[in-house]
Amino acid sequence: MNIDMNGDGGESFGAYELGNDQELMDSITSINIACGFHAGDPNVMKRTVEQAIASQTAIGAHPGFQDLAGFGRRMMAVSPEDIYAYILYQTGALQAFCRANGTAISHLKPHGALYHHAAADEAAAEAVARAANAMSIQTMFAPPESQLEQAADAYGLTVVREAFADRRYEPDGTLMPRTKQGAVLESAEEAAAQAVSIALNGEVTASDGSIIRLEAGTICVHGDSRHAVESAAAIRQRLEKAGVIVAAPEAVL
Amino acid sequence: MNIDMNGDGGESFGAYELGNDQELMDSITSINIACGFHAGDPNVMKRTVEQAIASQTAIGAHPGFQDLAGFGRRMMAVSPEDIYAYILYQTGALQAFCRANGTAISHLKPHGALYHHAAADEAAAEAVARAANAMSIQTMFAPPESQLEQAADAYGLTVVREAFADRRYEPDGTLMPRTKQGAVLESAEEAAAQAVSIALNGEVTASDGSIIRLEAGTICVHGDSRHAVESAAAIRQRLEKAGVIVAAPEAVL
Amino acid sequence: MNIDMNGDGGESFGAYELGNDQELMDSITSINIACGFHAGDPNVMKRTVEQAIASQTAIGAHPGFQDLAGFGRRMMAVSPEDIYAYILYQTGALQAFCRANGTAISHLKPHGALYHHAAADEAAAEAVARAANAMSIQTMFAPPESQLEQAADAYGLTVVREAFADRRYEPDGTLMPRTKQGAVLESAEEAAAQAVSIALNGEVTASDGSIIRLEAGTICVHGDSRHAVESAAAIRQRLEKAGVIVAAPEAVL
Amino acid sequence: MNIDMNGDGGESFGAYELGNDQELMDSITSINIACGFHAGDPNVMKRTVEQAIASQTAIGAHPGFQDLAGFGRRMMAVSPEDIYAYILYQTGALQAFCRANGTAISHLKPHGALYHHAAADEAAAEAVARAANAMSIQTMFAPPESQLEQAADAYGLTVVREAFADRRYEPDGTLMPRTKQGAVLESAEEAAAQAVSIALNGEVTASDGSIIRLEAGTICVHGDSRHAVESAAAIRQRLEKAGVIVAAPEAVL
Repeated sequence: MNIDMNGDGGESFGAYELGNDQELMDSITSINIACGFHAGDPNVMKRTVEQAIASQTAIGAHPGFQDLAGFGRRMMAVSPEDIYAYILYQTGALQAFCRANGTAISHLKPHGALYHHAAADEAAAEAVARAANAMSIQTMFAPPESQLEQAADAYGLTVVREAFADRRYEPDGTLMPRTKQGAVLESAEEAAAQAVSIALNGEVTASDGSIIRLEAGTICVHGDSRHAVESAAAIRQRLEKAGVIVAAPEAVL
Repeated sequence: MNIDMNGDGGESFGAYELGNDQELMDSITSINIACGFHAGDPNVMKRTVEQAIASQTAIGAHPGFQDLAGFGRRMMAVSPEDIYAYILYQTGALQAFCRANGTAISHLKPHGALYHHAAADEAAAEAVARAANAMSIQTMFAPPESQLEQAADAYGLTVVREAFADRRYEPDGTLMPRTKQGAVLESAEEAAAQAVSIALNGEVTASDGSIIRLEAGTICVHGDSRHAVESAAAIRQRLEKAGVIVAAPEAVL
Repeated sequence: MNIDMNGDGGESFGAYELGNDQELMDSITSINIACGFHAGDPNVMKRTVEQAIASQTAIGAHPGFQDLAGFGRRMMAVSPEDIYAYILYQTGALQAFCRANGTAISHLKPHGALYHHAAADEAAAEAVARAANAMSIQTMFAPPESQLEQAADAYGLTVVREAFADRRYEPDGTLMPRTKQGAVLESAEEAAAQAVSIALNGEVTASDGSIIRLEAGTICVHGDSRHAVESAAAIRQRLEKAGVIVAAPEAVL
Repeated sequence: MNIDMNGDGGESFGAYELGNDQELMDSITSINIACGFHAGDPNVMKRTVEQAIASQTAIGAHPGFQDLAGFGRRMMAVSPEDIYAYILYQTGALQAFCRANGTAISHLKPHGALYHHAAADEAAAEAVARAANAMSIQTMFAPPESQLEQAADAYGLTVVREAFADRRYEPDGTLMPRTKQGAVLESAEEAAAQAVSIALNGEVTASDGSIIRLEAGTICVHGDSRHAVESAAAIRQRLEKAGVIVAAPEAVL
């Protein structure tokens, strides 16, 4: 029973500090590093790569839409060819900091609105997978059964399916929209229990109380608040107590 | 008698077209590609790398200050550590497009105000050379006798000294400031003659009429106007007619 | 028989020149000036306001999405409250240049994807009209029968309905999508004839050959190419030859 | 004995929160609001203007260099004409939010590197004062005896001289550089004592122990940390206990 825990990091920008990357990396085993389009800047990328190496956390590229004001969370009508070029640009920039430190990018996970777009849109998914392949990034994080999973498969990439510890699932396996009451599991205890259920049994309790299948190789936790760092630590502890080995993607596969 | 001819390219941005890269590459042997900070965008970088490969033009990274509004021509008080990170970021991004096309960056030439800053400032020069070294870029374009040359030397990089075909030199070997009358050689004929003199004899006629030494491995030409493309072609023709072999840096060394 | 001719201007940015504003203003009677988000910069805005005053062209605010790389043509999922704040910011910035030159903004026309969004989305339209009202801009350019027209009406603004000289209309009065063959009237002659038909008779020949109603107070022409400037001049000439008085919005109303 | 207390605000950007504006405004009497170039965004400007009105804090325009990554603290070689246009743009944007809320800008204080540049450079100072004048902003905050003071005087603006509560002064009246030990008064008590000395006696104890003249109409406090908000409150309390009336610029003059 192995699973990866991933979190977003490197989201500070200039004078603006965001997140507790250093502490978060005590709990997670892979970190998705922002690449300067929706968050992050060259200094922050450098520092975060160095922290990831020091804490033996696997490094993921986390490219997003070029929308710093919206933190990459707003859908933009960007063409597949633009997506391909934007991802090459951003992952290349991150790769430079990895290279300068003697390491490499482990996986790719698109950020925010780009992740949702690539999950649902075939051409966008193809562009993302093509870019990962062009960069020799072997592993893609993707939602189960998504267009992104299919596109990554088609390029011969290893897909690591992602589940969320603190989000409620609908009976059909999709995430309950954040606009709905109960979409987020507020207590660390609940989130940890869901993570254990996913890791051990490959299932979660959906919003209607039914048990549904949810097999995942990585569990996403959030790190942009004090609460979140504590929540990540609780999830890690509960997983290990339940006998799950928490380890980076290469170990999971 | 070998010399490289270099020009800036990839300076378009989104809907904004600048320069005639395709035509310029008929004359030059290495192209310095903007990396998205002072000019260029991911699509333009992709296209320009592909054009450079097709025309067998050596690819140079051309990172600059993050000042699109000022085209990287305005000095910014950026720390050496920032310079290092900014260059890693930009050259990494360009490297991605090279990698996706099976090629590599041949040389590094900082752009505009960053070039002038690194030419004169020891710490800035060290940061630029350190970044090139971290990216395994072997060749640095630099002004003769500059801090940048010394720093690149110290990192074991190959330095290609740069001269300008269409700029007037002062008796001490520095460029006449653009604010002075006569700073720019307006006719293509004059520029071509100066290029030949540099390539064949390693000397130019300075502003006071004296002949000074100016040994260079590459001659910079400009490409952002119709006139400039024609001027580059004239320089190329005159150099070859004079028996100079015009070839990319690797060939020059 | 009065009609306004409007065109976009002030779209240059830093070293990037776009459009022939000065020449275009010989033909058009109102100019929509980019406000620095999708195009334009403070120097360009200053220059364009001064040119508009000199040529007695009415000044319109032309705010867009903050997407310089996409020229504001890509839809972004921006909330109505964001739209309100973005328009206040941009029109305020333009207003400063008008104020410094003793003039004022005549009308508001959202740009590109924001225009299309506000035409179709009730909440977005309300935000645009609310922003115009907060800035005491009395006149809104809007597509006939659009949400933007309704919202502007509700705020007591004067709506000037806009038609396009060089775009083909569908039988239902909508524009034929640019992706379809024949969407753009390529000849200046055809565009001029359509403009005259709109101005004199309030009708156009639709894509299926039928005649449909199209009443408009302003006709949009494009100015970002040499061809476009000539086309605008041809339209102006044909309109005046047909006895139409071409004049800015205040005169039209 | 009247004095103004000013602080910077509206420095958050998108998802990035910076400062405790709401609490800071309990202590200060005028707030310098960032205008989107070095910090701030349209939503933040809107919110901060509304908060300033609610807390009866005078609103200052706080334009800076367009360098979000460097928070406007890095000198940029920007021409006076650029400075003029940049200030018009930014103050115009802020003016829109004031206008929409039925208020107006009270004063102008350039930010960071632009403030230092305008304090020392005659042409830059002239551009700043000219822009304020064009916007009908009557009051300029400026260092005593600075170029900015002289330029504002020349345009007939009211100059409010600014002193710092928590910065050590050199015997010649200049600020001790931050790079020197002791440049910042670390204790709120010390800062409050210096503020009282400035307000009551127009003098401070310089770094060599000598007493020097320092007449000021406004005292700058910092607000970007928890400590800073408490420090501002302490300064306010000590000033009022000493019989100083703390009030916005109009009241001070």
